[in-house]
Amino acid sequence: MAVYTDVAAEEVAAFIAGYDVGELLAYKGIAEGVENSNFLVHTGRGSFILTLYERRVAEADLPFFLALMEHLASRGITCPQPVKNRAGQTLGRLAGRPAAMVTFLDGLWIRRPSATHATALGEALARLHLAGADFPMRRDNALSVAGWRQLYAACGERADQVQHDLKALLAAELDLLERDWPQGLPQGVIHADLFPDNVFFLGDKLSGLIDFYFACTDTLVYDVAICLNAWCFEADHSYNVTKGRALLSSYARVRPLSAQEWLTLPLLARGAALRFLLTRLVDWLDVPPGALVRPKDPVEYLRKLRFHQKVKSASDYGVTAP
Amino acid sequence: MAVYTDVAAEEVAAFIAGYDVGELLAYKGIAEGVENSNFLVHTGRGSFILTLYERRVAEADLPFFLALMEHLASRGITCPQPVKNRAGQTLGRLAGRPAAMVTFLDGLWIRRPSATHATALGEALARLHLAGADFPMRRDNALSVAGWRQLYAACGERADQVQHDLKALLAAELDLLERDWPQGLPQGVIHADLFPDNVFFLGDKLSGLIDFYFACTDTLVYDVAICLNAWCFEADHSYNVTKGRALLSSYARVRPLSAQEWLTLPLLARGAALRFLLTRLVDWLDVPPGALVRPKDPVEYLRKLRFHQKVKSASDYGVTAP
Repeated sequence: MAVYTDVAAEEVAAFIAGYDVGELLAYKGIAEGVENSNFLVHTGRGSFILTLYERRVAEADLPFFLALMEHLASRGITCPQPVKNRAGQTLGRLAGRPAAMVTFLDGLWIRRPSATHATALGEALARLHLAGADFPMRRDNALSVAGWRQLYAACGERADQVQHDLKALLAAELDLLERDWPQGLPQGVIHADLFPDNVFFLGDKLSGLIDFYFACTDTLVYDVAICLNAWCFEADHSYNVTKGRALLSSYARVRPLSAQEWLTLPLLARGAALRFLLTRLVDWLDVPPGALVRPKDPVEYLRKLRFHQKVKSASDYGVTAP
Repeated sequence: MAVYTDVAAEEVAAFIAGYDVGELLAYKGIAEGVENSNFLVHTGRGSFILTLYERRVAEADLPFFLALMEHLASRGITCPQPVKNRAGQTLGRLAGRPAAMVTFLDGLWIRRPSATHATALGEALARLHLAGADFPMRRDNALSVAGWRQLYAACGERADQVQHDLKALLAAELDLLERDWPQGLPQGVIHADLFPDNVFFLGDKLSGLIDFYFACTDTLVYDVAICLNAWCFEADHSYNVTKGRALLSSYARVRPLSAQEWLTLPLLARGAALRFLLTRLVDWLDVPPGALVRPKDPVEYLRKLRFHQKVKSASDYGVTAP
């Protein structure tokens, strides 16, 4: 969590003048987002988030992300809405970087989500998938099954430094998932990173979804599997069947899952666990000595992967498939 | 610039519930202040800054700082105004730390202040000194002449690592200032750290003063000397006589300086330069290898000190003393 780029008031004011949002009243660098520099901006017309995209986000992908947020907002999804400048564009440049301004969303993220929160999340995820159905742009998921071997190549040799025999486990899991990964399931826009810190609540009511910078075109139920991992395990890594049931059944009430989607859920959940295990492992092994930011623990996702390896069917997640 | 303490929404909401400010709608850790953790908070009643005081601020001093902001705000100075909780107190506890909430001030700080900004600053500083005249509390300035020998002891031996012969220069300057430091000048509340990043503007109009955590009871014109150093030198370290004249004459229009104050200004400016040279030197020499935050350059203040050593009278600053 950091602000990477420091921008002078004079520069921000000149940038804001290109938008019809009133005078710049204040801006503060906020400690949010690992990938970009974010500023909370107050203008005569309200609050906005100004984002400067740093090198880890591919500039070519920005039109997809911004157009997606516009599309979803127009379909009633509460997400940051890109603001158009006077030239009608959502993407500009500030301090030598691509930059965009989006509406500010009120809300708080919940550190220890309850089953009530999981219910709200399941419904919001299904609505997101439905709202994205007619989004015309496409972006491949570089972090799905086709991308995992490359991640494994970057960290496999050193994986045993983190846990004994981890390299062999990763290799076997990767072989299995590459062989059995399901084809032909319903596809569409997925968020792909809908962890609790990207979901805002006011009280028990879900008030917004943020951070669409991993969004892509992929298997919809894979997004459900990512959320199952991110929302339904306890701090001790045990699966909470009440939260799982809450998430899955509320999702299915809004967007019913096919028999094939229920059937493949355990395999997709293994895939989702492997994806975060691999990326966390790469980050963990890449940390320079003495760094201030400690990356997220990969072992958390190893535990989740092992849980899913033992799951026989979706009913182990707490839901009886129709 | 960092947020040191991470606080969960649940904790912030519970803290905010102790105040009559409406429901917590959002909070963001902001990259502001080196000493404390600061959050920009949105509630049903508006925007606030929530500060968690970290170890570098003495808890015993907090009542002084908070009462001072209340006092100044009640006298018409635009500064953050501490909010009282339902028990009538401005100081509370959050995440095991002393914590306070103050009103949010709109405004931007100016990286390259002009003479117009220096004029506004001079007037605001004088108004601050007048408004503080009847503030009943007292806090000694640990970073004035009586505290410098201790700072010198902490960095003098290694000073020559930064610049050849710096140790000898510091020793001689310290001897001279300890011997000649003026007594009996008008005293009162001084801000003691009124650098451009602590002064907000909207356009050319000064909109607020922030960060009173170095405020103390000391010689008023010493505060003017600190501002002369902080506002009236260019990036190449040369003194800008137009800005100096602007600051000093606008200050004196609101609070006229006595003949004795004008006379001692060059010596006080040397002292102000030595104070920031010493503290920056301590920070510079204390940085662990590989640290992400680069401390401020002490040499900037060595150049300012050398300028003031050659000044013969206040007229060298651009103002003819009455």
